[in-house]
This record gives sequence, C-alpha cells and structure tokens, in this order.
Amino acid sequence: MTVGSNKFAAAVPLDEIAYNEQGLVPAIVQDYLDGTVLMMAWMSRESLAKTMQTGETWFWSRSRQELWHKGATSGHLQHIHSMRYDCDSDALLIGVEQVGDIACHTGERSCFHQVDQDIVSPPADTLSQVFAVIRDRQQNPNPDSYTCKLFAGGDNKILKKIGEEAAEVVMACKDDEPGAIASEVADLFYHTLVALAHHNVDIRDVYRQLQSRR
Amino acid sequence: MTVGSNKFAAAVPLDEIAYNEQGLVPAIVQDYLDGTVLMMAWMSRESLAKTMQTGETWFWSRSRQELWHKGATSGHLQHIHSMRYDCDSDALLIGVEQVGDIACHTGERSCFHQVDQDIVSPPADTLSQVFAVIRDRQQNPNPDSYTCKLFAGGDNKILKKIGEEAAEVVMACKDDEPGAIASEVADLFYHTLVALAHHNVDIRDVYRQLQSRR
Repeated sequence: MTVGSNKFAAAVPLDEIAYNEQGLVPAIVQDYLDGTVLMMAWMSRESLAKTMQTGETWFWSRSRQELWHKGATSGHLQHIHSMRYDCDSDALLIGVEQVGDIACHTGERSCFHQVDQDIVSPPADTLSQVFAVIRDRQQNPNPDSYTCKLFAGGDNKILKKIGEEAAEVVMACKDDEPGAIASEVADLFYHTLVALAHHNVDIRDVYRQLQSRR
Repeated sequence: MTVGSNKFAAAVPLDEIAYNEQGLVPAIVQDYLDGTVLMMAWMSRESLAKTMQTGETWFWSRSRQELWHKGATSGHLQHIHSMRYDCDSDALLIGVEQVGDIACHTGERSCFHQVDQDIVSPPADTLSQVFAVIRDRQQNPNPDSYTCKLFAGGDNKILKKIGEEAAEVVMACKDDEPGAIASEVADLFYHTLVALAHHNVDIRDVYRQLQSRR
C-alpha cells in the first residue's frame, strides 16, 4: 500500500471542517489492519493541512500550544492509510500504520488502555482478540485449556484439526446450512490461528498479505 | 456475551475523568465485532453515569442542551460490551453492539462515512474489508475478476480451493516457513470468505460465534 506525500492532499476539505471555538477538531487515530483505536488528539487547520501534505499525523498540542509532529521525537510516526470525516464535519477518523506499534507515551500500544481494575489494550477485531487469547494461553499454559492441549500436541495435532475443520466447512456448505457454515468457519479460523501462534507468525502478517493484494 | 445493567457500573471512575470547560468528555463508539468506529459524541458526568448504570449509551446533546438516550427515538440503541478511557482520562472508548447496524442519523452505518469524492464507510478490520470487496464483486460481476470466476464455478470450484489451501497451510507449517505460512493462511481465509458470501453467510455471524465461545 502506497504511503506518502500528496495521496491525501484533498482527502478532507479544510474549509468545510467545523473547528471548535479554539480552532480545533478531534482526530481519532485507528490501526489500519485491525481497527484498534490508538489515540485521540486535536488538529488545527494548519496541522490538518500538514497531515494531508505529508501523509503523517500532525496535531496541535493543547498543553504546549504548538504544532506536534507525532513520533518526531520517539520515532513512533504514524503513516496514513485513510482519512474520513463525520456527518457533521466536526470529527476526523484517520487510519494509520503505527511505527513501532506504540502510540501512547506510556509505552502501551493504545492510549485507551485504562479500564476498571486493569490495564489492557486489546485489538479491536474479533479474530485478533481470539489470537491474543491464544497467545496468552501459549505463554501461560493451563492443562485444562483445549488450546493448551493443541499446543502440547504440536504440528501433527494442530494441522490434523485444520484438515478436519476444512472438510467440515466443505460439508456444511454442501448442506447449505447457514448456522453450520458460520460455526464450522469459526472452528477453521480458530485452529488456523493456533497454527499461526505455534509457528510464531502474527495475524498482522496475514492481514498485511491481504492488504497488499487489494 | 452478557449485556445489561450494572456490569459497567464501575468501568470508568466518574470523578477521575477530565471533563472539559463545558463539563463534557468525548466518547468514541466502536463496533464490538469488527472495530468500525461508528460515531463520536459527548458525555456529561450525568450521561456517563446513566450509560454505566443502564449498559446503553447516553450522551449530552450540545445542540439541544439535553440528555440524549441514543436510539430512544430511532430504535438504534447501543448495547455496551466494553468501556475504556485514555491515558490522560479525557476521552472514552466504548465497544457496542449497534442495534440495526445503523449509528448515523443519515442512515449510514457509521457517521464517519465522508471521504473525498465518495461516501463510504467500510468496516475496520482487514478480513471484513476483504469480505466487503468480495460482496461487491458478487453484486457487480466483472468477468476478469478471479473472485467472480470462483462464484461462477459455484460450490465445487470454491470448496475445492478451500481443501487445496488448507493443505498448503499444512505444508507451509511443516516446512516452518513464516512467510509461506502467512501467505497460505491469507489464501485460506480469502477462499473461505468467498464460500461465506456464496452461501449468504455474513462474516459477522462467524465473529458472533467466536465471541460467544470466549
């Protein structure tokens, strides 16, 4: 996917945005592969213009009262993949590739990592959430967990299940039973994610493959 | 996944949120299955409290200057699945099940549907994006498209490919080649999505299956 200058030069009409009384508009920044919301910050007309010119995010720092090129100091730049604005033009949504996979100054992936009694910042989409649980089982084995039994059986156990589940998807489709199809595809996806984890391949590498083919 | 009153009663500490000079905090609302950002609106302390008590979203309408129970008129309620807040406690992120799959007053799924020269509101995660492209090919056939050739071949052509790609995943894992594994899993996922579309099963039904097992 091409990233760089001027691809987004006209993505958002600068003069149609409803800036607030401070001349700012909130910008939500989202991971382009799995939809995780990484942060929300504010853009002035000038920072929005620089963002569109450069293909990287520029914000207005309300605390420092200055333009802020995200990642200029930390190296955690954000390369833009998409820009949208909402129905009343007073909020922006920006899809990015987050360099280093860290958006937050705390070192967490996402700024939205606070939840009652816990610090967690899971990915947004279902498959990535399931993959995160599988990875957790891999790192913290529990003998009662089905996932852990699969890991213990290694490739021969895991891959046999992929063959089985693929055959069950085929049969459910031949029977044309929507409920069974959804269920068998869920099984196939789950066991395939276990195989990925077993071989230390990230689901994001699969997503990158799919994005690169579009 | 259980939805309802009081599950989120203490998800966000009401007194630790940094409300702005109008006493409001921005709340980003995200689909719990595929991570699509549906809307951004503002919450007062009171609306945030009602949101946590009821498990449905309540905002503060800045135009009407009143509490706003999202969906009370349209029926498009938002049932809450997760609540988080960001590192400096001045923004909220709320994962919801959107009733009717329409969050925007325009009838679009997401308020963030404006992009230069187009009205599009694609889902956030890679697999759902690929599925949307497959669905588009299904509805707007193009004889040169590989996806359309698969549809034209029906179950026997599509399901044969699922068998083949599953076998290729198995071989890539046996060879322990990370690049090949990612590529073959991408192929397997893509062909499985074509089978889903061919049988009019939504990828969201697969995601619901996976979420219900957690």
